[in-house]
Amino acid sequence: MEQIAYGMIGGGKGAFIGDVHRKAIRLDNLAVLKAGCFSRDVEKSKAFGTELGIKGDRLYTDYHEMAEKEASREDGIAFAVCVTPNASHYDICKAFLSKGIHVVCDKPLTWTVEQSEELMRISKEKNLLFGVTYSYTGYPVVKQMRKMIQDGKLGKIRFVNAEYPQDWLAGPVDEHSSIAPWRMDPKVAGATNCLGDIGSHIENLVATVTGKKIKKVCARLDSLVEGRTLDDNASVMVEYEGGGKGLYWSSQIAFGYDNALRIRIFGEKGSLEWVQEDPDYFYFTPCDGPKQKWSRGRDQFDESAQQYSRVPAGHPEGLYEAFANIYKPFILALSKQLRGEKLDEIDLDFPTVEAGLEGVKFINRCLESSKQGSVWVNL
Amino acid sequence: MEQIAYGMIGGGKGAFIGDVHRKAIRLDNLAVLKAGCFSRDVEKSKAFGTELGIKGDRLYTDYHEMAEKEASREDGIAFAVCVTPNASHYDICKAFLSKGIHVVCDKPLTWTVEQSEELMRISKEKNLLFGVTYSYTGYPVVKQMRKMIQDGKLGKIRFVNAEYPQDWLAGPVDEHSSIAPWRMDPKVAGATNCLGDIGSHIENLVATVTGKKIKKVCARLDSLVEGRTLDDNASVMVEYEGGGKGLYWSSQIAFGYDNALRIRIFGEKGSLEWVQEDPDYFYFTPCDGPKQKWSRGRDQFDESAQQYSRVPAGHPEGLYEAFANIYKPFILALSKQLRGEKLDEIDLDFPTVEAGLEGVKFINRCLESSKQGSVWVNL
Amino acid sequence: MEQIAYGMIGGGKGAFIGDVHRKAIRLDNLAVLKAGCFSRDVEKSKAFGTELGIKGDRLYTDYHEMAEKEASREDGIAFAVCVTPNASHYDICKAFLSKGIHVVCDKPLTWTVEQSEELMRISKEKNLLFGVTYSYTGYPVVKQMRKMIQDGKLGKIRFVNAEYPQDWLAGPVDEHSSIAPWRMDPKVAGATNCLGDIGSHIENLVATVTGKKIKKVCARLDSLVEGRTLDDNASVMVEYEGGGKGLYWSSQIAFGYDNALRIRIFGEKGSLEWVQEDPDYFYFTPCDGPKQKWSRGRDQFDESAQQYSRVPAGHPEGLYEAFANIYKPFILALSKQLRGEKLDEIDLDFPTVEAGLEGVKFINRCLESSKQGSVWVNL
Amino acid sequence: MEQIAYGMIGGGKGAFIGDVHRKAIRLDNLAVLKAGCFSRDVEKSKAFGTELGIKGDRLYTDYHEMAEKEASREDGIAFAVCVTPNASHYDICKAFLSKGIHVVCDKPLTWTVEQSEELMRISKEKNLLFGVTYSYTGYPVVKQMRKMIQDGKLGKIRFVNAEYPQDWLAGPVDEHSSIAPWRMDPKVAGATNCLGDIGSHIENLVATVTGKKIKKVCARLDSLVEGRTLDDNASVMVEYEGGGKGLYWSSQIAFGYDNALRIRIFGEKGSLEWVQEDPDYFYFTPCDGPKQKWSRGRDQFDESAQQYSRVPAGHPEGLYEAFANIYKPFILALSKQLRGEKLDEIDLDFPTVEAGLEGVKFINRCLESSKQGSVWVNL
Repeated sequence: MEQIAYGMIGGGKGAFIGDVHRKAIRLDNLAVLKAGCFSRDVEKSKAFGTELGIKGDRLYTDYHEMAEKEASREDGIAFAVCVTPNASHYDICKAFLSKGIHVVCDKPLTWTVEQSEELMRISKEKNLLFGVTYSYTGYPVVKQMRKMIQDGKLGKIRFVNAEYPQDWLAGPVDEHSSIAPWRMDPKVAGATNCLGDIGSHIENLVATVTGKKIKKVCARLDSLVEGRTLDDNASVMVEYEGGGKGLYWSSQIAFGYDNALRIRIFGEKGSLEWVQEDPDYFYFTPCDGPKQKWSRGRDQFDESAQQYSRVPAGHPEGLYEAFANIYKPFILALSKQLRGEKLDEIDLDFPTVEAGLEGVKFINRCLESSKQGSVWVNL
Repeated sequence: MEQIAYGMIGGGKGAFIGDVHRKAIRLDNLAVLKAGCFSRDVEKSKAFGTELGIKGDRLYTDYHEMAEKEASREDGIAFAVCVTPNASHYDICKAFLSKGIHVVCDKPLTWTVEQSEELMRISKEKNLLFGVTYSYTGYPVVKQMRKMIQDGKLGKIRFVNAEYPQDWLAGPVDEHSSIAPWRMDPKVAGATNCLGDIGSHIENLVATVTGKKIKKVCARLDSLVEGRTLDDNASVMVEYEGGGKGLYWSSQIAFGYDNALRIRIFGEKGSLEWVQEDPDYFYFTPCDGPKQKWSRGRDQFDESAQQYSRVPAGHPEGLYEAFANIYKPFILALSKQLRGEKLDEIDLDFPTVEAGLEGVKFINRCLESSKQGSVWVNL
Repeated sequence: MEQIAYGMIGGGKGAFIGDVHRKAIRLDNLAVLKAGCFSRDVEKSKAFGTELGIKGDRLYTDYHEMAEKEASREDGIAFAVCVTPNASHYDICKAFLSKGIHVVCDKPLTWTVEQSEELMRISKEKNLLFGVTYSYTGYPVVKQMRKMIQDGKLGKIRFVNAEYPQDWLAGPVDEHSSIAPWRMDPKVAGATNCLGDIGSHIENLVATVTGKKIKKVCARLDSLVEGRTLDDNASVMVEYEGGGKGLYWSSQIAFGYDNALRIRIFGEKGSLEWVQEDPDYFYFTPCDGPKQKWSRGRDQFDESAQQYSRVPAGHPEGLYEAFANIYKPFILALSKQLRGEKLDEIDLDFPTVEAGLEGVKFINRCLESSKQGSVWVNL
Repeated sequence: MEQIAYGMIGGGKGAFIGDVHRKAIRLDNLAVLKAGCFSRDVEKSKAFGTELGIKGDRLYTDYHEMAEKEASREDGIAFAVCVTPNASHYDICKAFLSKGIHVVCDKPLTWTVEQSEELMRISKEKNLLFGVTYSYTGYPVVKQMRKMIQDGKLGKIRFVNAEYPQDWLAGPVDEHSSIAPWRMDPKVAGATNCLGDIGSHIENLVATVTGKKIKKVCARLDSLVEGRTLDDNASVMVEYEGGGKGLYWSSQIAFGYDNALRIRIFGEKGSLEWVQEDPDYFYFTPCDGPKQKWSRGRDQFDESAQQYSRVPAGHPEGLYEAFANIYKPFILALSKQLRGEKLDEIDLDFPTVEAGLEGVKFINRCLESSKQGSVWVNL
C-alpha cells in the first residue's frame, strides 16, 4: 500500500506528545511525515523539521501558510495532525479543513462548545475525516469490552464508576518544579486543568465502551493544593440518557498513582473492569459465575478487537500501540475515501469530531455546575 | 482475670451476626454469655439459649424482663449486646441503659438522630459504656493508618475516596431468592437500604482513620434494580470541617465484588490505601518515594496497632478477629471501670455512642439531600 | 451437643502455637480444656493452667502422670493435644495412645520414619483417632480445589509448582535477635530447619489437594546465611506415583515474603492456583477459557468445602478458622465414635497419622538426597 | 543523525518476529531497511521486500549473495539482522561476519557451543559488533534492577528463583492445531523445545541483572503432554560462581499463563522481583522496611535506566519498546564505531555474542544433565 503524506502542527523538539504521534504513525508505516510547522520559533521549527527528514520547502512559517501551500501542491499532505496547546486547536483545525485537508487533533478539541460544533459542521460539509486522539480507546481490550456490551453481555447498563488518579501535580508548581507554572494560570490554561486534561478521557472512554450519552451532570471541581486557582481534582455525578447513572473522579494530587485511568461498568447481567496501567487485561464478571481475567490476544477476543492486537498474549503492548490504533483505522479510512470508495460506519473506528464535541460539552457543563455549587446541568 | 458476664438480645439460631458476636467474644474469653432473649418466639429463644449453655432462669420472654431481672441480680450481666434489626435498637438499648447496664449495639445505631442523641445522653448521665460494632475499624491496620495520620505522616488531609461495593442485591429479591423481601420493603426496612447498611461503614471508617468530621453532604441514592423502592447504590460528595473533601460510593449491585470496603486517603505529604477484603495489608505512598506495602505484624507497626495483632505477619486474620478487637478494648475498659478505676481517653479504643450518632446523622442528612435532588445539606 | 473434654501438653504462657490451638477449638466450642501439663516448669505450668480455668487436680507434673490419671478418671479427657517441640512428639503421643486416649499432634509428627510408623500402628490397633495439625489444609478453598481435582476438572495432573517463602530467618540469628539461637543448632533442632518446618507444609498441601503420593525426590538443602549449619532454603524436584512431576521451594531468607505458601497445579484440562496469604480466593483456569477467580462462600463452592465456610464471601477468614477446620471434623468424628457409631471415610476430613507419616518420610528422604549431592531417592 | 542501513535475513510475510524487529527499529528511526532475503521462496521474498520499499537490486536470492554484494557496495548495509529459525543462525551470521558486516541475531544463538565460540572469535578478530536479541533485558526496569545490584542494594546474592510459564503448548500439537508440528519434531527442532526457547531467556535475564555466571546445573527436562518427544517443561537447579544458588522453571503447559517470565532475587540486604507481563513495575524489599513498588519513569530511577524510558510513568511501554532498547544502544555504538571513535564498555549496553554463547552453554549443559538423570554438570 502506498504511504499517505501527512503534516504536523506543533510537536517541536522535546515536546512529548508530538513525538508520540510520530512514533505511533511510524509503527504501522501507513503514513509518512512530509510537511510541518513545529514551533512558533521559525528557526527552531525548520531545524527540527530538517532533522526529521522533511524537505525545506515544506517547512512553514505558520499554519496558515502551511494549509494554503500544501492544499495547492499536487503531492500535498492528505491530513494534518494538530498537537499544539488546546487554545489554538480551533483556529488551526479550521484553517486546514477550510483548505480541504483532513484533520487529526489532540483532545480536548476546543475551549467552547460552539467552536467544536463549527469544526464538526465544516468537516461534514466538506466530507473530511476528523480524528481526535483520545488515545486510551485505542487499546484492543477497550474494543473488546465495547463489543461485549454491544452484544448484550452486561444487559442494560446500571452504573459506571470511573476514575483517573495521577499525582504529578500533588506538589507545589512553582519556579523550582519541572512543571510549567502556566498550567495553573487560568489566563493561559483556560478555565480548567484537571477536569479538562484527564476528566475528559473518562468521559470519552465511558462513552466509547458503553455507547451511552450523558444527559446531565452534577460536578464539584476542587483546588486542593494551597494557592492554586485551577482545579486539580474533580468529582462528577452523571446521569445517562435512557437510564443508568455514573460517578467520575479525576485527580492530580493522588499520591501513589501514575496514570491510573480505570473504568468499572455494572449491568444487569454482569460487569466489566479495566485499568489503563495494565492495559492488556480486563475483568468480566457474569452474574452467574466467578470473575474472569481476559488477556489480550486470546481466542476469546472478537475479531473487531483482535485485529488491533499486534503481539501474542503476554507480550505487553502499551501507549504507542494504543495511539497507533487510533491512527490505523483513520488512515485506512482515509485511503479508502481517497480511492473513491464509500466509507461504512465500521470504517470510522476511531474517535471522531462528534466524540470531540461531546468531550467539550462535558467539560463546559461540569464547569457550569461546579460554579453554581454543584447543581444539575443538562448536556 | 475474671470473666465478665454478658447477655444478648437477638441473634437466635441461624442468625448470622449474633453468632459472629459470640464467637468474637469467645476468642479472647474475657466475657461469658450468661443471659439472653434470642428471638420473639419464646420457645425457640429458650431452646437455643439452653443449647448455648445458659441456665433456664436467665432465658427471658422479652428484653424488658431481661433488663429488669438482670439488673436486680447480684451476679447480673455487666453488659448487654443488642443484635436485633435496626428498628428496635433504640428501645432495647434504652431499656438496658435505664437499668444501669452497659451496652454494645449493632450499627446503624437508630433510625433518627434524636434517638441516638437520647441514648448518648442517658449513657453519659449514668456513666455507662456504650459500644457500637462498626467491625471494620477493629483491624490492626486500621489502627496503624489512624496512628500514621495522627503522627502527621500524610500532613493535611486533602481528599478521601472511599467505596463499598457488593453484589449480593444485584439480582431480583423476590420469593425465589434467598434474600428476605422485607429488606427492600420501606415499611419494614426504613428509609434506606444500601446507604444505611454499608454506606454508614464508609463514614465510620473514614472518621476513625482521619479523625475528621463531616461538615456537609451532597448525595444521590439510586434504586438501580427495576421495581425496587429503596436504594441499592449511593454516591455522596462530602466536605469536612477544617478543610478537605471526600467522595463515597456504596453499592449492592456491583457484580464482581463481595464486600470490598476500600479507603484511599490523600494528604499533602502522602497517601494511604486499604481494602477490607485483604485486611492485613495497606499501602503507604510518601510524597518522595515509591509505594510501600505494609504487612500487619511487622516491626514497623506502632504499639497502638500491634497490640491488636494476634498472629505473625502472613498468617491471615479476618472478620472474627476484627470483631474481637472491638470487644477486647470494650471489655477491658469495662473491667477497669468495674474495678473502680477512672478510664482514660485511650481506654475507649472502640466505636462509642458518639460514633453511632455521627453515623445516624450521616445517613439522615444524605437521605435529605437526595430527596431534594442532591443539594448540599449540613450535618 | 455436649462438649468433649480435652487436655494439652505444651503451649505454656506466651507460647504462640498453643494459644492458637486453644482459640481455634473455642471458636466452635465443641470441646473444652479440662487438663494440662503446659511446661516443664511445674509451678509455671500449674499457675497458667489455673489462669485457663482448669481445676488443680488436673494440672499435672508430667505427661506420664497426665496420661495415666486422665485415663483412669470417668470424666477423663477424650483427646490430648500435643504442642511441644518436635523432639518430644513421639514419646508424648505414644504415652497417650497407650492409655487409650485419642491424639492431636503438631507437625512434623516425629523425627524418624520408624517413630511415625509405630504411632500409626498403635493408633490403628487401639482404634484411636489421630490428627496432625497441618493447619493450611483447613481452609475452605483448599477443600474446594481438592474436590475439583477429584471431579476431574483438571484431568490428569501433569505438574505442580509449590513454594513457601518467608524472610524471618534472613538476618543473623544470634544473641541480639528475637529468634532463639537453638533453632539453628543441629544438636537441639535436629537435622533440618527450613525443610522440616515449612517444606513439610508444601508436601502435605500438595498431597491433600491432588491426592498424589510422592515416588521419589531429588533435593538440595542450602544454608545461605553465613555461619549457619542448618538449612534455611530448600529446592526439591519430585516425581509422583502414577505420573506427574513437581518442583517445591521453601525458603526463610526470602525478603519481601511473610508466609507465602503457594501452590500451582497444572493438569491436562486446566490449572489451579492458591496462596495462603490471600486464603479466601483461588484461581481456576480451564483449558478453554479465561482465568477465573473463585471466592470462598460463593454458590459455586461444593458442599464439602462450603460447610467449612463461616462467614459470607468477602468477609475474611484466617488462620484461626483454618485451624478450627482441622479440629471441627476431628471432634465431630470423635463424638460419633464415642457415641458408638462407625466412622466413614468422609468423617476423617482432617490430616491423620498417615499424613503425618508421609511428611516425615518426605523430610528424611530429602535430607538423604541432599547429603549425597542431590541424587534421586525413593520414598 | 544520519540513518544507518541494515538488511534482514528471514522475517518474511506473516513471520511474527521479523515484523517485531522492523517495527522496533523504526520506533527510533536510527536505521533503515535497505536490503533483504526474507524467505527461501525467492519470488515471495522479492514481492515482500518490494512491499517493504526495498529496491529490487537489493533483494537477494540467498544470504550468501546478499553478504557478498552488500559488502561490495559503497552504500552497503552496516549490519545484518538474522531472524531465521535457530538451525541456520550459525551459517548466516558467519557469512556476514566474514564479509565484515556487523550482526544482530535472534536467540538462542546456535545449536552447539563450538558454533557460538567460533562466531565470537570471528567477531572479535574483525572487530565487529554482534548483538543477540534477548528482548526482555531491554526493559528499563531490568536496567534499574541491574544498577541497584551493582550498587550493592541487595548485598551478596544468596538465591534466585526465576520462572517462565506459558500455556500455548499445553494442548495437543497436531494437524488440527495452529502450531506447526515440527516444533515438537526433534529432527527439525533440535534437542530441546521449552528449555531452548524460553529457559534460555531466564538464564540471560538472571545473568544480566545479577552479573553472576553459572558454575553448574542439575536439570530435569519433561515431556508432559502425551506422545511428545521434546521437552515442554524444565526444572533446573543452579549454582553460581562465587556463591549463590538458583532455581529455574520454564514451562509451556502452564494453563493460566501467557508469557510470565518472572525473576526474584534474594540478597543479604534485600530482594528484587519483576514479572515481564507487568513490565513497567518492579518490587524492592530492603531488609529493614516494607516492600516498595517502583514505577518506570519515576525520579528514583538511575539515569542508566531512565534513558531507556520513552513515556512518563503510568503510560505503559511494552515489547516493541523493549526490543527497540536492544537496537538503540547497538545502533548508537555502531554509529560511534563507524565514526572512528573507540567504544567504551558502557556503549555495549545490549546482549552481545558473549551472552549468546553463555545461553548456548546453559542449554547444552542442562540437556546433558537431564539425559544422565539430573546429575550436576559444570558449565
